[in-house]
Amino acid sequence: MPLRSIDWEKGEIRIINQNKLPQQLAYEKLTSLEEVAEAVRSMKVRGAPLIGVAAALGLALVAHQANFLPKAETIKRVEAAAEVLKATRPTAKNLSWALERVLSKIRESESPSEMVVEEALAMMEEDIETNRKMASNGLGLIEDGDTILTHCNTGSLATVSLGTALGVILRAYQEGVKVRVFATETRPRMQGSKLTMFELHYEGVDTTLIPDTAVGHVIGQGHVTKVLVGADRILTDGTTYNKIGTYQVAVLARRHRVPFYVVAPASTFDLKSRREEITIEERSSSEVTHIGGVKVAPEGVKVYNPAFDETPPQLISAFVTDRGVFHPPFYKSIKRALSST
Amino acid sequence: MPLRSIDWEKGEIRIINQNKLPQQLAYEKLTSLEEVAEAVRSMKVRGAPLIGVAAALGLALVAHQANFLPKAETIKRVEAAAEVLKATRPTAKNLSWALERVLSKIRESESPSEMVVEEALAMMEEDIETNRKMASNGLGLIEDGDTILTHCNTGSLATVSLGTALGVILRAYQEGVKVRVFATETRPRMQGSKLTMFELHYEGVDTTLIPDTAVGHVIGQGHVTKVLVGADRILTDGTTYNKIGTYQVAVLARRHRVPFYVVAPASTFDLKSRREEITIEERSSSEVTHIGGVKVAPEGVKVYNPAFDETPPQLISAFVTDRGVFHPPFYKSIKRALSST
Repeated sequence: MPLRSIDWEKGEIRIINQNKLPQQLAYEKLTSLEEVAEAVRSMKVRGAPLIGVAAALGLALVAHQANFLPKAETIKRVEAAAEVLKATRPTAKNLSWALERVLSKIRESESPSEMVVEEALAMMEEDIETNRKMASNGLGLIEDGDTILTHCNTGSLATVSLGTALGVILRAYQEGVKVRVFATETRPRMQGSKLTMFELHYEGVDTTLIPDTAVGHVIGQGHVTKVLVGADRILTDGTTYNKIGTYQVAVLARRHRVPFYVVAPASTFDLKSRREEITIEERSSSEVTHIGGVKVAPEGVKVYNPAFDETPPQLISAFVTDRGVFHPPFYKSIKRALSST
Repeated sequence: MPLRSIDWEKGEIRIINQNKLPQQLAYEKLTSLEEVAEAVRSMKVRGAPLIGVAAALGLALVAHQANFLPKAETIKRVEAAAEVLKATRPTAKNLSWALERVLSKIRESESPSEMVVEEALAMMEEDIETNRKMASNGLGLIEDGDTILTHCNTGSLATVSLGTALGVILRAYQEGVKVRVFATETRPRMQGSKLTMFELHYEGVDTTLIPDTAVGHVIGQGHVTKVLVGADRILTDGTTYNKIGTYQVAVLARRHRVPFYVVAPASTFDLKSRREEITIEERSSSEVTHIGGVKVAPEGVKVYNPAFDETPPQLISAFVTDRGVFHPPFYKSIKRALSST
């Protein structure tokens, strides 16, 4: 059984506190909106699909605790909670998608408290089902002997369970396909070192950790046959927002003719926004100047720490989704598959 | 006055212990061959030109301490010391170049002990002079309003004083040219965060630290007008070996039409070796799994930690050297300027 990053237990949320990995696999309970918001903000839970589910469960927590209150008051509290949660991570599409999905039904509901809890739990189950479908759809792309480079963490720890890009790799591995993996450490937060290495090591996949500076060398030397990454937001034309560093991996893959696949659920696609409207979240300078509490840069220096970057569709070979694999031209394939959502 | 990384004081070597930066500007004395070898191996002194001078001074130390011995015994000890020092960092051209330069004269010398000390001290002074020339030659490439991205550390701390790529930037800044700098942190050893940020902050240059993962984003967004890096070894055709991560910076610069300059002294050029003969040094996995003693990856994972990568000449706009600026085609310009060496 793959790891389970989040669950709902008797009116409380149980999470793996990912900031304690890889040293400790620690489960933690969240019992208030503030705790949920803090867990998302400080990245105890992170990964686009997981923070969507975490936000929905955050609303469920508020709704559950308000279930003795008048209907209007419950709605008011849930809507206010959605505002708080939405502000925690501005770039992630799944976060606002998840909140909107819950909110869209609340005013028509007879019993908003129950409805919100049910909807959030349904979303949690759907995430697992979605990941299973993506893994099935991606399986055909992985060949015996492949060496796959992946960036950041897109596994069980980025979702409720199994994952997106890492889910495809794990599924192939479980099916007996011979794969090896290069995982980038993914500065500044080291999700590759801490989380991807933890998951792949836990599952037994032959994996090698590399510094982000070694991507060009490893791809250039011909060691990589495929690149698989996740996504935080994908626009109609295929423009992809993902963890900082994704763009340069895509450029290097293209230069050396290595296929570059983005694995993401339909909920990551944003058919409304234009590029100019996307905010690239900037995170704290201390993520760069300090590592594990140890200072690595001089006092008072300027830092630029964008959390995401933009990969143009021209660098992407295909999107692997729960609705199938989308090939170029993406403005057609994405529209055809998703315009009904 | 720029920082002074290494000096000779009354028969002893004085260095800045760079492993203590940026927290502490600590000077240390080296009084034996073993201490010099350990200082190079553990990167208390690092940077291609500096380790060349450190190795030469290491031989001077051995020769100085053997000056009461018979001539043949002095030569034997110095030659044995050269073997020890040569093995400390296999990729750096300057290291073997510096050792060979001292050894080439030792057998003809009347007084080998004095000769070795004199030669090493001359090399130390020449390094400063070489850096001044490179800075002068590079000055014409830097324009008012430039934003320069640099990788790793190539400043006073990579040389005896002033530096190579950073020397050009510092010289331009001192001449009143308005420049801003992006410095990559340069995983795994963080020479950018620790050393380049320390030097530029110390000198007052407007500098922003970025994670290595943000290079593509920063260049792609049009924030960078020039890239300047150093080199550890340059072949006749211009193929350049430098800190891991240089190749991907060069690829990204080319994609976005940003000029990419390599700044290095004539001693870094290797007109004899072919690409197949170059060993890419692999360093310890603990540099990747641990940062400042803090563990960031699970126990027992595989790591690939190459110290250098290879940048093809097609990605390099020009070489800035103490013998002038070399433009493409490099197989001609390099040969013309350096074939007499």
